[in-house]
Order: sequence, then structure tokens, then C-alpha cells
Amino acid sequence: MNGITKYVYDFSEGDASMKTLLGGKGANLAQMWKIGLPVPPGFIITTEACHKYWEEKDFIVNIWADIVSAIARVEKLAEKQFGGTKNPLLVSVRSGASVSMPGMMDTILNLGLNDETVQALAEAAGDERFAYDSYRRFIQMFSNVVMEVSMNKFEEKLNELKKKNSVSEDHKLSAASLKELIVEYKKILEKEGLEFPTDPWKQLKLAIDAVFRSWNTARATTYRKINNISNSHGTAVSVVSMVFGNLGSDCGTGVCFSRSPSTGENKLYGEYLINAQGEDVVSGMRTPIPIAELEKEMPKVYDEFSRIATLLEQYYKDAQDIEFTVEKGKLYILQTRNAKRTAAAAVKIAIDMYKEKLIDEKTAVSRIKPEQVEQLLHPQIDPNARYNKLAKGLPASPGAAVGIVVFDANEAAECGNKGEQVILVRPETTPDDIHGLFASQGVLTSHGGMTSHAAVVARGLGKPCVSGCEEVKIDLKNEIFIANGITVKKGDYLTLNGNTGEVALGQIPLVKPQFDENFRTLLDMADKFSKLQVWANADTPEDAKRARDFRARGIGLCRTEHMFMAAERIPVMEAMVVANTTEERVIHLRKLEKMQEDDFLGIFEAMQDFPVTVRLLDPPLHEFLPKLYELEEKLKEAVPDSSEAKKIEATIARANELHEQNPMLGFRGCRLGIVYPEIYEMQIRALFNAACVLTKRKGKVILNIMIPLVATQEEMKRLREMVDTIGGDIIKQAKCELEYFVGTMIELPRAAMVANQLAEFAQFFSFGTNDLTQTTFGFSRDDAEGKFLAQYIQKGLLSQNPFAVLDRDGVGALMEIAVSGGRSVNSQMQLGICGEHGGNPSSIAFCHHLGLDYVSCSPFRVPVARISAAHAALGLLK
Amino acid sequence: MNGITKYVYDFSEGDASMKTLLGGKGANLAQMWKIGLPVPPGFIITTEACHKYWEEKDFIVNIWADIVSAIARVEKLAEKQFGGTKNPLLVSVRSGASVSMPGMMDTILNLGLNDETVQALAEAAGDERFAYDSYRRFIQMFSNVVMEVSMNKFEEKLNELKKKNSVSEDHKLSAASLKELIVEYKKILEKEGLEFPTDPWKQLKLAIDAVFRSWNTARATTYRKINNISNSHGTAVSVVSMVFGNLGSDCGTGVCFSRSPSTGENKLYGEYLINAQGEDVVSGMRTPIPIAELEKEMPKVYDEFSRIATLLEQYYKDAQDIEFTVEKGKLYILQTRNAKRTAAAAVKIAIDMYKEKLIDEKTAVSRIKPEQVEQLLHPQIDPNARYNKLAKGLPASPGAAVGIVVFDANEAAECGNKGEQVILVRPETTPDDIHGLFASQGVLTSHGGMTSHAAVVARGLGKPCVSGCEEVKIDLKNEIFIANGITVKKGDYLTLNGNTGEVALGQIPLVKPQFDENFRTLLDMADKFSKLQVWANADTPEDAKRARDFRARGIGLCRTEHMFMAAERIPVMEAMVVANTTEERVIHLRKLEKMQEDDFLGIFEAMQDFPVTVRLLDPPLHEFLPKLYELEEKLKEAVPDSSEAKKIEATIARANELHEQNPMLGFRGCRLGIVYPEIYEMQIRALFNAACVLTKRKGKVILNIMIPLVATQEEMKRLREMVDTIGGDIIKQAKCELEYFVGTMIELPRAAMVANQLAEFAQFFSFGTNDLTQTTFGFSRDDAEGKFLAQYIQKGLLSQNPFAVLDRDGVGALMEIAVSGGRSVNSQMQLGICGEHGGNPSSIAFCHHLGLDYVSCSPFRVPVARISAAHAALGLLK
Repeated sequence: MNGITKYVYDFSEGDASMKTLLGGKGANLAQMWKIGLPVPPGFIITTEACHKYWEEKDFIVNIWADIVSAIARVEKLAEKQFGGTKNPLLVSVRSGASVSMPGMMDTILNLGLNDETVQALAEAAGDERFAYDSYRRFIQMFSNVVMEVSMNKFEEKLNELKKKNSVSEDHKLSAASLKELIVEYKKILEKEGLEFPTDPWKQLKLAIDAVFRSWNTARATTYRKINNISNSHGTAVSVVSMVFGNLGSDCGTGVCFSRSPSTGENKLYGEYLINAQGEDVVSGMRTPIPIAELEKEMPKVYDEFSRIATLLEQYYKDAQDIEFTVEKGKLYILQTRNAKRTAAAAVKIAIDMYKEKLIDEKTAVSRIKPEQVEQLLHPQIDPNARYNKLAKGLPASPGAAVGIVVFDANEAAECGNKGEQVILVRPETTPDDIHGLFASQGVLTSHGGMTSHAAVVARGLGKPCVSGCEEVKIDLKNEIFIANGITVKKGDYLTLNGNTGEVALGQIPLVKPQFDENFRTLLDMADKFSKLQVWANADTPEDAKRARDFRARGIGLCRTEHMFMAAERIPVMEAMVVANTTEERVIHLRKLEKMQEDDFLGIFEAMQDFPVTVRLLDPPLHEFLPKLYELEEKLKEAVPDSSEAKKIEATIARANELHEQNPMLGFRGCRLGIVYPEIYEMQIRALFNAACVLTKRKGKVILNIMIPLVATQEEMKRLREMVDTIGGDIIKQAKCELEYFVGTMIELPRAAMVANQLAEFAQFFSFGTNDLTQTTFGFSRDDAEGKFLAQYIQKGLLSQNPFAVLDRDGVGALMEIAVSGGRSVNSQMQLGICGEHGGNPSSIAFCHHLGLDYVSCSPFRVPVARISAAHAALGLLK
Repeated sequence: MNGITKYVYDFSEGDASMKTLLGGKGANLAQMWKIGLPVPPGFIITTEACHKYWEEKDFIVNIWADIVSAIARVEKLAEKQFGGTKNPLLVSVRSGASVSMPGMMDTILNLGLNDETVQALAEAAGDERFAYDSYRRFIQMFSNVVMEVSMNKFEEKLNELKKKNSVSEDHKLSAASLKELIVEYKKILEKEGLEFPTDPWKQLKLAIDAVFRSWNTARATTYRKINNISNSHGTAVSVVSMVFGNLGSDCGTGVCFSRSPSTGENKLYGEYLINAQGEDVVSGMRTPIPIAELEKEMPKVYDEFSRIATLLEQYYKDAQDIEFTVEKGKLYILQTRNAKRTAAAAVKIAIDMYKEKLIDEKTAVSRIKPEQVEQLLHPQIDPNARYNKLAKGLPASPGAAVGIVVFDANEAAECGNKGEQVILVRPETTPDDIHGLFASQGVLTSHGGMTSHAAVVARGLGKPCVSGCEEVKIDLKNEIFIANGITVKKGDYLTLNGNTGEVALGQIPLVKPQFDENFRTLLDMADKFSKLQVWANADTPEDAKRARDFRARGIGLCRTEHMFMAAERIPVMEAMVVANTTEERVIHLRKLEKMQEDDFLGIFEAMQDFPVTVRLLDPPLHEFLPKLYELEEKLKEAVPDSSEAKKIEATIARANELHEQNPMLGFRGCRLGIVYPEIYEMQIRALFNAACVLTKRKGKVILNIMIPLVATQEEMKRLREMVDTIGGDIIKQAKCELEYFVGTMIELPRAAMVANQLAEFAQFFSFGTNDLTQTTFGFSRDDAEGKFLAQYIQKGLLSQNPFAVLDRDGVGALMEIAVSGGRSVNSQMQLGICGEHGGNPSSIAFCHHLGLDYVSCSPFRVPVARISAAHAALGLLK
């Protein structure tokens, strides 16, 4: 024994706080022992012993005396004897690291059996078959784990024996057959030049050695690498007296949750089997009985279990997942841990426990992970449903959808509007397909990435989308697609899982979203801790209402260009773009002005008392013209030299003139407002007129006007002046009071670098991290995802897609410069983010640490963002 | 008089050091007086008086007594009397600020004339016509400058009189007619309610007032704003006794340079007229006589003038531009200033003066502005040639060219190779036009900016280019273009001025470049002061040789992709790009490998002992495929289903697959090396094999391998490993010693932000400021220049094109981050720039301040860069 360090702890010597030293499992067992629960006696060899073991292989020798005396104390408590021929003590030897690594390391049960003790066990249990079955399992397990003999060799012998005895199931083998099998098993070892150790002490020593060894197996080290767990932790070893639930009708075994892990209902939820071992519950040979029945069959045990479940909840402050065994009428608790649960259950348990005063608001909020919130907002594939995936693409928009396959947006719109459930399947989608997307349950594209048109629109609509599913080869002409050899026709049913990117054939059952009162309560609780406000990106009054339903505190991005996309407006917009002179452009803009004013009025009405951030026109003008090949087709059909033909020719000429090599870096954003001031002037008038109309109706408008794609101070200065001049005049004429602010997107690296200069004229900044990520990385999101980004992630060049999770080192560092630049000029400057990252938990945590005022995201992600903001503030999300 | 401050200085009281107080002109006059030169007597009213004047309008009253006594001292020295009826003193009243503002403020000559003194002048001069002509000019000038009466009214009367007298020229009017005219002039003033002041003292006071007033005229303040001159300087006023060169044949006037301003030859260079006023020299009525003649006509005067010119040069240490007048045999120096000169003259004068020990090396170097160097490297339009411009585009590549118009690259190549001088005129050029560009004298494009294909290639070839000349409407079919109404046909002569962007019809005379021994000497002197080395961008052995001729100290950028563009290589490259599998790609790459090795060997040979920085493949692969429409045309011509048709179809499919929305932000640079490692592996092998071959031949290679478009540390790490592994093997096998470095371009904002991370694996950084400017601003250079950048500059949103002059606030700030990031990891890290900015003086100055080690630019710009680097180090270029 090492004189100073203690390496072996009886359960009575530990508690839950000693996880690092005793491992999670060991510390929990000690804790249960401490609060007087009926845990079978045992002891723990510490993680420090594991470290020592890896320093000097013979280390176990040094602590062997401690182990021997620990066994002696267990013998006393269990009233059994290790290696005894009367009432033999059998033990389990299990690994248990401080961080859970389920299934990664080894376990040995029934240790202590040999040719003699097995007979004693048979006697004690009054069941010879049970005893010899336990023995042959032990030999099998020990040989495999400790002596590294392949499991197959034993399975082979077992199968031969079953064949010989003409039985198909293990438990139908007689005790005699099993004795025969044990002889065969020993022969296997002999052939390998090994000998099965009959001495229980030798068994124990080898088993402990094997558990320590298992800390550094390839699969364990890989698991730790993937899960970012330090290699230095080491595993502890628990040695626990075996108890048996299969020694008669006063025995049993089961697993029980203190509350429903599915719904969260506050009621024991679990199942058990009389006269059975844990294995029997798992194997499915016998159907387990619901825990409620135990009340009738073993009322005392049930009562004690109920009491214990409550005790454990009170101690751990959380719903528990408890393993128990009843041996000859006595209840033993073998393990307890915090219960895994569905998102819905998590919400209900958190709120209930808060009401029960078991936990405070902070703890309640911490119990729902941002990722889980997703499950509550969108239909999900039933967790119990089994299905084979047909193909896998990118998980572009969350939730699940079932519908019939349709290859055309018009047809999707038609069917959808008739009430049919359709899945739109396209190589990729364009703005022309919007009506089809709108009417579909979900969308599948074979090309495009997480930020492709289909993905962005689907997220905006809250519909599931699987994008970039290259395995799906679409044949539009024949209206079929082929995926991994299977042909899918128009009208076939398809199920999409937007959370995983999986596509399956047929109608997989779904579960509905559960945005209930408890969840609302929890979100409101969350808001109390958040430093960041959550705003929404909304382009229409409907979006704005949805945003308010989810309690968004403002609109962080209202894209005005979508307003021009409506069928009746497109021709006017087109004429404006084609116009040759300012005068001509102004004529068309006048027509658009009234429409814009109405749009804004609707949004302002929906968002009364909350800020609305409107971005002036951003996309390049050629986006408002038909595609060149369409125009050329049209021209072929037109009568030569007719006025129509001339009009088309003019449009073609203009489209050619506006064509760009790299439209992302082209003539768009505020560059339009500088070169064609009449466009922005129109939008500014429409905004102020709408705001004044509502103000006069006693409504309240907080108007943020946002200038896109600013790169220089001079742009910001001139456009600020434009807003102030036009807005000031309108306010004066309307004689109304109106609060308005003029700010800019920070979406170009230069804007970040000169943020201090911009802050002299910009009253707020909103980080447009989609574009900022594109320019910072030099990644066009239209191209990168399909061309090389997937490979980059797969090959480990990037740990995540920077369009989904904000890149802190590059984009984030630029944001920091912008924040300090802006705040150096105006310490009160309002700062937010309106890129897609505004709905991503990790990115929200970063925004919190940056000290932004708000994140703005798609309305459907507002709840995720609210929880994320709270978790960031609580330090739960880094 | 103000008791403390002195506002009026006699010439004898000042010197050249008092520019701020006395103005440039005044201080120079005082200085010449001081060194005993024959300057007509006079005095100066200080710039401080001007400030006082603007504080209190009546300020002149306070210093009037000082002025009166100063006049008295002038009277004494001149032996004339102000307002005197015998030998009247006339004076000039001139403005003179401390910073030269030529022509911006007012001057009055012959002040002191009235109805009485004019008679005295006539007598003294013995020439009544001269006296009355002076008088009427004085009235005219005074009325206009002091009393602000329009000059037209006087001109009208003058013209009426000439008509009446049937003469066509002013000097043919008789004294009598002039007297008549003076009466008419006075009537003009009467009509305006004004009276011409006959009192010379009143004239003087009003004139001084007018000069002070002229400091703040609209044109003067605008001039100061444009030239960044502070408004607070104020102007001084010089009052100088008039001398007359037209009082007889012992009189004369002239302008003379102390050395030739055209060639720099150390010989008086100028002209004069006997019995004439300054005006006569300028007006062109009489042909001036070369200064050498003065030696015969007035040998004493000539000797004195020679002596004075030398004296002035010795005092000012620079060539002088001297105005003189001889009045009755006495030489007066009226003004001296540093002579303006051609670049060639500047070089010769600097070197000569250095040899004469008049100036030191530093001063010699400082005498040639970087902008002037241009003139020495390319043919220029003869400065004496007069021409009408036909159109104006962007000055895309410097120099001038004359040739016949050709609209087709093949034809240009044909004619050019036959020895004809051609100008290639195209809407824009593509890589297919290279042979045409090569054979042309210059290129004119109607589209594209300063960094369009034509511009970049032309600068690389050192040929003039005018790009983006939108006024030129090209009709390729009819082989004509129309510019501002004028039609130009194929075969017509055209002249391009690549320095100004001007295009002119016909053959304008050119002057040849003058890269002579003096200039080489001066550049070598410059290098002694520079901190920055100057390297060159060179893709071929020819470029490399040229770079060495210009004494580039290394190659900062060798673009390997240009090596694949040769006619025999394009099909191999195309096959490689179209290949479906790695194996197939490797087969084609093997063929390219040998070719690359030879290319590299050639460059290494040319650059022995100097570093060669080779950039691995950068452009997107689709650039190596024919254009889609070309492929489609080809497909139409191919026999359906033939193997040729299938090959074309495969190429079309691949081209479609590789098509990108924003190629600038797409699948290029090191992304190619990551996804298709076999491409970079081939290039690395070729590099090391070539380097080892040369090393074994006892040559020396310093190899820098540069990875393009790096955004992340992991890219740099993996590609560094690739180079080290392959390179290490080759070096080992070849058993040679080879110095090599692996580095990266910093051309993405993210690379700058994570430069410290990159520096762990990159041994050098080279700033690719072309791309960095694109991504930092979000400006696609292909699009921005034609679409909005010109307007931005014109409207003042940008003071300069950021692709020409490095943007310090944005791009520069990112560079600073990268420099400190890189140096924080490796303080000795080599840093350079290889973007186009490497040849721009202001950008070079910035690089100097950043502490870079070198700038790399087109070989033709190496001399500009060498002077710029020296000027930056000497603090002459900020």
C-alpha cells in the first residue's frame, strides 16, 4: 500500500462530489450509499490508480492489500464469501470515467465463479441451470475482455450445442448441456495456449487490469478525440457485489424513470420482469411489465422504490433513470443517472420542477438545450419509427415532411393549393419557384448548399429542406429521379428529415410540433437572463406577426426587394430597370412608391412599439430582369421589328449591360443608391410617409433605416444626408413626431475596418454575416458549398460550415474591430446581427460575448435564439 | 504704425528663409538683393498684414506710414519720384503667397501713371505711343482688378477704335488714338458711377487692398481646397519699381534657364527680344532670339547674366528659370525660380550637379519624382506636338503609341509580324488575343477598367493601353468605330496616350524612351537609401531577364498558369480538367510536368543568386476550357454520336459543372490543391526537379513556393507538408543542397486576420492586394470599374481608384494586422507585396511604412518602384 495516497474507497467513503476521483458511476453509487439507499456493497479503485497503472504496469501489486481488505468489508456487508463454497460473493467489475463514455470500456459480471463456486451458487439459487448459464457467460465475457479471445469462437460452440440439442434459443439449454459447453469453452482457451483462472482473486486482478487497459483502446481514444474529452482523466473501477433478480418469484429487475422521458408527466415510468436478470429485459425474449403493476405484485417494494425515486430527484434535482433489482424481496438500486428525455419532456419537467420549488428559474432554463428547441417547433419523424434512408443530403432546414413527389413548382402550387401534401423535388430552385415552395410540405434539391435559394427560403417559411442531395439524379423530362439504384416517380410518397438531411421512401409517421404554454413560460423565464434581445428577419406583415407571436423584440432585417417580386409589380420593376434616363426611371418608381408605402404600413402596424429595421434595395438590378435565355426565346416568338420585339431587344441590351462576372462583388447595395439616387429616394419617401400615417393614427413606429453594403464613410455620409433631408421634410409637412435612426450593415471587411469612420454618420450597425463570411473567406456561398466546402469539412480543413456557424477567428475578429470602432465614437451605439448566424446557438453565444444588443433571425428560429441568448448569458454556451 | 510687429520689409531686410512671412516671390527678391544681384528696388508687405486685413478691413491705414516711407526709400534707390512729373517712379503691385498658386491672385503693373506722369514717362522714354499705351493698359488692368469692371467693356472700345482707324493690331494705333481711347475708358468708369483715381498714392492703397482681397476669391479658395493648401497662409504683396525693356535698342527683356529644361545640358537656354516688354515675348508678335545671340549683341550684359545664373544655381542648388530686363544697358533680374524640366533633363541635371559637387546623392535622388520616371521608360507624345483628342478612356498602361487600326487579334499579329505598326482596337480582350496584343504597338478597348485583361497584359508587356473608352462605339462587322461623330476605319492611323487615356486621329510625333546611363546611375544611388527591395512579377524567362535588366532583386510573383496557355499545352490542360478520375488526371499532368520543369529551369537560370517566388496554380479550372458557346458551336459541326461529339459533350458537361456564379470567390487557388492534390504535387515536383538540375550545374536557386488564396491555417499546414514531403524526397534523391521556403499570399481578409496562425506554417507572406482589395471592398474589378467605380471617383465618393492606389484605411489596416500577426510568430519573416500596387508610388510608400521587405511589380515599373522606395525612405513620399 502506498502510504500517502488513498487509491481504494468503500462506497461509504465517497459521495457525488468526487466524480473526478471515483468516476461518475462510482461517485453516484457512493452518494446513494451515503443517503441510505439500498445499494449492493462495493468499493471503487480511483482514476488516480489508473494513471499510476499507465505509469507502471505492475501498479496493482502496490494496492492489492487495500483491495483484499475492501473485499473483506464487502463480504461482511453482503454476508457472502468471495470464492466461498457456501454462499459465494460474486462481483461485477466495471469501468467508470468522470465523463460518461457509454459502451466504450469494459465490464465483467459474475466474477468469482469457478467449478466450485458455481455449485454453491446453484444451491443458493436453487437453480442449477441459472448457475451454469451464469458461469458459461462469465467464462465467455472474461475470456473475451481479459484474455482477448474472439467472441465468435464461443458463439460457434454454443450454436453447435443448440443444433445438437435441437433447440433454437439459449435459455432452452439444460444445465447438463451447459456443463458440456463449459468444458468446450475451456478447450477453446487451451487451444489458444491460455488457461481459465479458477482462483477468484486472480480473476479479480486480471479484470481490474483489463478495465484500466480499456481506457486506451483505439475505440476509447477515438471516442475521446471526437468528443473532446481529455486523455488524462483515466477511468475508475467499481467492484460491486452481484445481486440476482432471477432467484425466484420474489425476485425481479427493472429500469424506471422518475418521470416520463417522453412527455415529462410526473409519474413513475418504466418496466420490470419478475424472476429475471437485466439482460432479459433488454433482450426482448420476455415482455416487460409496466412499473405500475409492481404496486400490486410487490407493494412494499413499489412503495420503497417510489420513495427512493423521489429522494433521488430531490437530491439530484432532476428526473432520474434508475436501474433496480429485487433479490428475494429486497430492493437494490444498481444505478441512477439523469434521465435522457425528449424536448417536450424536458420543458414539462423543468416547468413542473420549478413549480415544485425543486429548481429555480435559472436551472429550469438551463435544462433545455438550444438544439432541442428545434424539436418543439417543427414536425419531427416519430422517434419510434424505423425507416431505411434512400439518400442523404444537407440538413438545410429543420423538421420533417411527408408528401408526394412533384418536379415542377407550378404543379406543386396547384396540388398544394388543392390540399394535397407535396414534396417539391428540383435540381435547384430560383425565385420563380417561390409559389411552389410555399405550397409544398418540404423541398429536396440535388444541388446547392445550406444557403442555397431553396434552403434560405425554406428556413424562412419554416419548412423542411434537404439540399445538395447529389445522390439524387433528377430526370425532369421523365419526371423521375434515381437514388442509389431506386427509381422514384412523380406521385410517389417521400419523407424528408430536414434535421439530418435524410430522404426516405414512403410515408414515415411524424410527430407534431409542441409549442405549448409550458414552453412559452420557459422562454419568458429565459429572457430574464439574456443580455441579448432576439429580433426577427421579416419581409411581410405576416412574417412580422409571426415574429411577434414568437415574442421577437423587433425586426432586425426587412428586405425591401422581396416586395418587388409580386406578380403585378415585376413588370413595373422591370420597366424601371430598363429605363434609359432618370426621368423615365422616376415615372416607374412613382408607381412602386405607393405599393411600398402600403407594405411598410402593414409591417409597422404589426410591430407597433417595436423597432423595425428596413434595408434599402440591395440586390443587383439584373435580378429583376428575366433571364437572358428566356428573353431570347421570347424574341424569337415576337414579330420581327414589332414594338414588342423592340421592347424585348431593349431589355436584352440592358441585361447584357448589367451582366456581371461576380455579381456578389458588383453593382448592388448602396452603390445603387449612389448611382441611381432616385431609387433610394423613393424608398425613403415611402417609409416616412407610411410611418407618419401610422403615427397620426396614434400608432407608434420606431424606424431604423439600414443602408446595405457600405464600404466607405462617404457613402454613409451622403445616404444619411439623403434620409435626413427627405425624412425631415416629410415629418415636418406631416407635423408628426417620429423616432428614426439611420444605420448600416457591416457586411464588408472594409466596413469593419473603418467602423469608427462610419459611426460618425451611422446610428446603428447590423452585422450582415452572410456576406461578411463570403468576403472574409473569399467563399461565394452559391458556389463553395457544392464545389469544395463539403470536401473541406469532410477532410477536416474546416470543422464546420462557416455559413452555419460563425467563424470566430476571421469573421468574428473583424466584428470585434467593428464593435470597438463603433463604440469608440458612440458608446451607446446599437449593435446587432441579421445574418443567418443570428439563429445559430454557437454564433449567438459569440454575439453575447461581443456585447451586441440583439440578434435577428428567421421568425421560426426566434425560440432557439431566445434559449441560446439565455444560455450564453448563463455561461452554458460558449 | 503698429509699434511691435513689422509689416513692411525692404528687400534689403529679407531673405529666402522668410517665405512664410514674405511669400515665395518676395523672399526670392529679397534673397537676390541680399546676394547683390541687380534687382529693381522694392519692398514687401507681409502675409501677416494680410491676416490683419481680413480681421479689420481698414488695417492698411495702420501701416500706411510704413508704406509711404518704404516708397521714399525706393524713390531714392531708383532715382525716380512716385507721382513725379519729371522722372516718375512706376511700380508693380503683385501678390505672392508662401505656397505657389500660379495665376490665382492679382497683379497690377505700371502703377503711378495718370494724365501728368504719363507725359513725364513719354518724355523719359522718348516714346509717346509707348507711354500712352502703358497708361491705357494700366487703366484697363486697374479698373478690372481693383474696381471690378468687366474687361469686355474696355476691349469693345479698343476694337471700335481699331475699326475706325482701319488697323487690325493694337500696336499700330497711334499715340493720338490712344489718348482718345483713354478718354473713352474714363467714360466707361463714369457710367458705372466710378472715378479713376489720379492720385498715385490712392492707386497704391487700392491696389494693395485688391491683392489682399484676391486671397479669398472663389477661384483662389477652390484652388487651395483642391491642392490641399491651408487658408490661413495669406498672401504677401510685393511693390517693385518698374523697369522697362522697351526704351530703346539698349533695352531688352527675356527668360532664360540656367540649363536646358528639355535635355538638362549645362548651357544657358532661353530667349530674349531687344527693345521689348515681357508681353512681347509671350504674345508671339515678334520672334524671340536665342540667348546665345545676346553674347554678341550685349556682351557685357551676357557675361553678367551668365555670372548671375551660376550664382543663383549655387545659391539654390538647382537649375533656375530667370526673368530679366535690360533698361538702358543695365541688367535687372526680375524673378528666379527652380526650373520646370522634363524627366530626362531632371536626371541629367541631378547627375551633373552631383558630379559638380553642387548637391549630394540624397538631393540628386530627390530631384526625380516617381511619376516622372514613367516618361523615361516608354515612348511619349512629343510635348511640343499639338493634337485634338478624338476620345478619352482610362489611362490603363503608360506610354504612347502610333499605328494603324486593326480590329482583330489575328490580323494584328499578322501585320505586326510583318513589321507594320498596329493599334489593336477591341470591345475588350481575352487570353485568346494575347498574340495580337504582343504584335501591336498599343491597345484600345471600349470596355473594361484599369485592371481589365487588356490593361494587365499591356502593362506586363510595357505597351500603352487605353481601356474603358466608352465614347468609342465599335462595329466589328464593318471594321469601323465611331467616336464623337467621327468614323475611323481599319487602316486609319491612330495615336494613343496611355498616360492620359487620350486617343487621337493620325500620327502624332513621339519621343523615344531615355533609359540611359545617367538614369541607371541615379537608380543605383536611390537604392542606397531604400529600405524596401524592389522585385518583379515575371512569368517567363524573358520577363525574368527584363526584370534583371532593371535590377530587380528577385521575382516576387511567377504565375504558373500562364505556362499552360501556350497553344500546344492548352489541349493537355483541357483534357486534365475534363478528366473524371484522379488516375486520368494524373496521366495528363505527367505530360505537363516536363513542360513546367523546363519553364522553371529557364526562369531559375535567368535569376541565379536571386529569389524566385513561384505561385502554384491559382485560376479556376474552367478558365482552361473553351467558352461554352464555342463548344456548342463545335458540337453543332461535329458528326452526331461521333467520338469527337462525345468528347465535346463531356467537355460541355464539365464546363457546366465547373460554372460559378462568382468565380472570384470560387473554386480556385489552394482550394484546387486541396481537392485535387495531384495538380499541386505535379507542380512541386517540377519545381524541385528543375531547381536540383540547376544546382547540380553549379547554379544557385533560391526557391520560394507560394500558396495562393489561403484562408485557414489548416490549408497552409497541409500544403506546407505536401511541399516538404515531395521536395524533401527530391532533394534527397538528387543529393543536392537547396534553399527553399514555403509561404502564402495574403489576399483574403481572413488570411490577414489569422496571419499569426498562418505564420506557424508559412515562412513568408506576400500581399496579393489585387484580390485583397476586391474582397475588402466587395468590389469585383471586372465589374466595378465599368459599372460604378468611375462614378464613385467622379462624384468624390472615392478620391482614387483603390485598384491603382492602395486603400490605407481598409486594405492597409488589414495588412497591418497581418504584418504584426506574422512578425509576432516569426520576427524575421519575409514580407512583400505582389499586387499591382507594388508599382504605385503612394502604395510603395505605405509598404515602406509598414516595414515590408520588398515590393514586386511588373518589370517595366521596377525603376518607378526603385525611385519610390528611396523617396519613401527619404520621407519625400508619404
